[in-house]
Amino acid sequence: MDTQTAPLSPPRYEDIKAAAARISGVAVRTPLLESAALNDAIGGRVLLKAEMLQRTGSFKFRGAYNFISQLDDDQRRRGVAAYSSGNHAQGVAAAAALLGAPATIVMPADAPNIKLDNTRALGATVVTYDRHTEPREEITAQIAAESGATIIPPYDHPWTIQGQGTVGLEIAAQAAEIGATPDAVLVCCGGGGLTAGVATVFAEISPSTQIHTVEPECFDDTARSIATGRIVSNQPGGHSICDALLAPMPGTLTLSINSRLVSSGVTVSDDDVREAMIFAWQKLKLVVEPGGAVALAAVLSGAMECKDRTIAVVLSGGNVDAALFSEIIQRETAA
Amino acid sequence: MDTQTAPLSPPRYEDIKAAAARISGVAVRTPLLESAALNDAIGGRVLLKAEMLQRTGSFKFRGAYNFISQLDDDQRRRGVAAYSSGNHAQGVAAAAALLGAPATIVMPADAPNIKLDNTRALGATVVTYDRHTEPREEITAQIAAESGATIIPPYDHPWTIQGQGTVGLEIAAQAAEIGATPDAVLVCCGGGGLTAGVATVFAEISPSTQIHTVEPECFDDTARSIATGRIVSNQPGGHSICDALLAPMPGTLTLSINSRLVSSGVTVSDDDVREAMIFAWQKLKLVVEPGGAVALAAVLSGAMECKDRTIAVVLSGGNVDAALFSEIIQRETAA
Repeated sequence: MDTQTAPLSPPRYEDIKAAAARISGVAVRTPLLESAALNDAIGGRVLLKAEMLQRTGSFKFRGAYNFISQLDDDQRRRGVAAYSSGNHAQGVAAAAALLGAPATIVMPADAPNIKLDNTRALGATVVTYDRHTEPREEITAQIAAESGATIIPPYDHPWTIQGQGTVGLEIAAQAAEIGATPDAVLVCCGGGGLTAGVATVFAEISPSTQIHTVEPECFDDTARSIATGRIVSNQPGGHSICDALLAPMPGTLTLSINSRLVSSGVTVSDDDVREAMIFAWQKLKLVVEPGGAVALAAVLSGAMECKDRTIAVVLSGGNVDAALFSEIIQRETAA
Repeated sequence: MDTQTAPLSPPRYEDIKAAAARISGVAVRTPLLESAALNDAIGGRVLLKAEMLQRTGSFKFRGAYNFISQLDDDQRRRGVAAYSSGNHAQGVAAAAALLGAPATIVMPADAPNIKLDNTRALGATVVTYDRHTEPREEITAQIAAESGATIIPPYDHPWTIQGQGTVGLEIAAQAAEIGATPDAVLVCCGGGGLTAGVATVFAEISPSTQIHTVEPECFDDTARSIATGRIVSNQPGGHSICDALLAPMPGTLTLSINSRLVSSGVTVSDDDVREAMIFAWQKLKLVVEPGGAVALAAVLSGAMECKDRTIAVVLSGGNVDAALFSEIIQRETAA
């Protein structure tokens, strides 16, 4: 199968179940955590899907492994390529190493050092570019053209979405194990792959559960695209500490899914995100990166009503530089 | 039952099972985590019991809740008192609040601010003292004498040990769920209550599993007491960043159990502990306090041989001030 030109049809629930079987025993079945301190703080019940505990420190390993494991021997030999601000980079690098494929990753020169270092440590070749002036898609396409490598799309591909959707399968199963059904699931949203996968799962097994995207201010392209019914880009010049969520616009496939299955989008400020990171550090004892904390920020800031509800929150990753993390937790305002 | 004068007999396995039933649904069944990065680093399999995810951020809630839930109405009305560097303080404060007992906690004035603040936030009255000049036991005894409060011993009491032993029950059950049997369990050791409880469990259900205490340099009183067969105190003047593990000597009851059931004691340096905290932050995405990191430090430093073995490690708590935590992680030497 030519992964670059195959028709991009939405994954079905059964496809996500198949992805779960592919990643089983390799990806971590991350715990669904609950905190009395958090429940008390918001007057409801929050179930935290702790994807910072995933291999490579974010959910991205799931989609990458699901994708590369479906390549044939010849494709794996020619290698894989990807562009990423850092979490998809590490996910692809780790999955490629496990599956015997060389990996080349195109990353912004100003990506967090922890993400650049980890990607290299996982054996990938890292090519850096200037996020403000160079088109990463073209750089990656050129690398692929020269090497014959397969590009692993960060979100806008059924195989990627299938893998990320396993987060939703696990949330549903783990909630059921403790007798809970989420009234809503809050998912951080960059390109929309994680949201699309999770939404597909809940549409099948718990259609009454609402799915909400959470995005940083200035990067709410998915919320606005859903609201207007067409792909809307972010205004240039916006800034956010959520380096993992700066995709310029939703994917074609992801938006087609999310516009159908997402109830609404929520936006949070950088200050909301910092407060959530402090809360996670101080009360949950979890390291959450800015982009991984937006859904928790929506809960703690009041952007999402939680009173007397059961809300599942995806904490999507924990790859953050020590300097930024230290600066944030030393505010300690979340006591 | 008069808890202050009852004979201090070692808890049996069945007593720990009963404690598990008492704390069920109140204490968190913390996950037993595994990390590919950690396994790769040590060439073995490490199962991490993540007690920083426990209510109040350490395992101490278990013993405190198990203890106070066995007091009668009149005893609860008169309240509870405890002395603690901070984690037992928070555990007692939270358990007392849940069970309707007023709590007075005697804490060193130089305890981490996060522990002092959290204890007060949980509704307890905090009385501070100078750790170097004032006898905390006497201060606590006087408070109890005046108020009729029941003293909740931090480690040297069967009810406390029963509660902490539930950590061992969960490790054994969770390891079995993934088809593993630990060759050894590494437990941080201050007064020895957690070790005594965990050791009692494994002696019953997996006698071939070795139990090792891990202590900071200069505070290896339990290791030396076990080696010499009598209670040995730490030399005065020693320093360690492990504020949770500075008990001056083992308890009478805990040592009687641990000298029988512990294979050997391991010692780690403050630098080993810092490296472990960095690893936990950077690779595991978990916040571990110094005293909670000693068992991981024993694994990472090579003090405990792990190659081709399955080692359970208790990460006992995560209550650390932001300033110290930031200082440590910004070294970032554990890459």
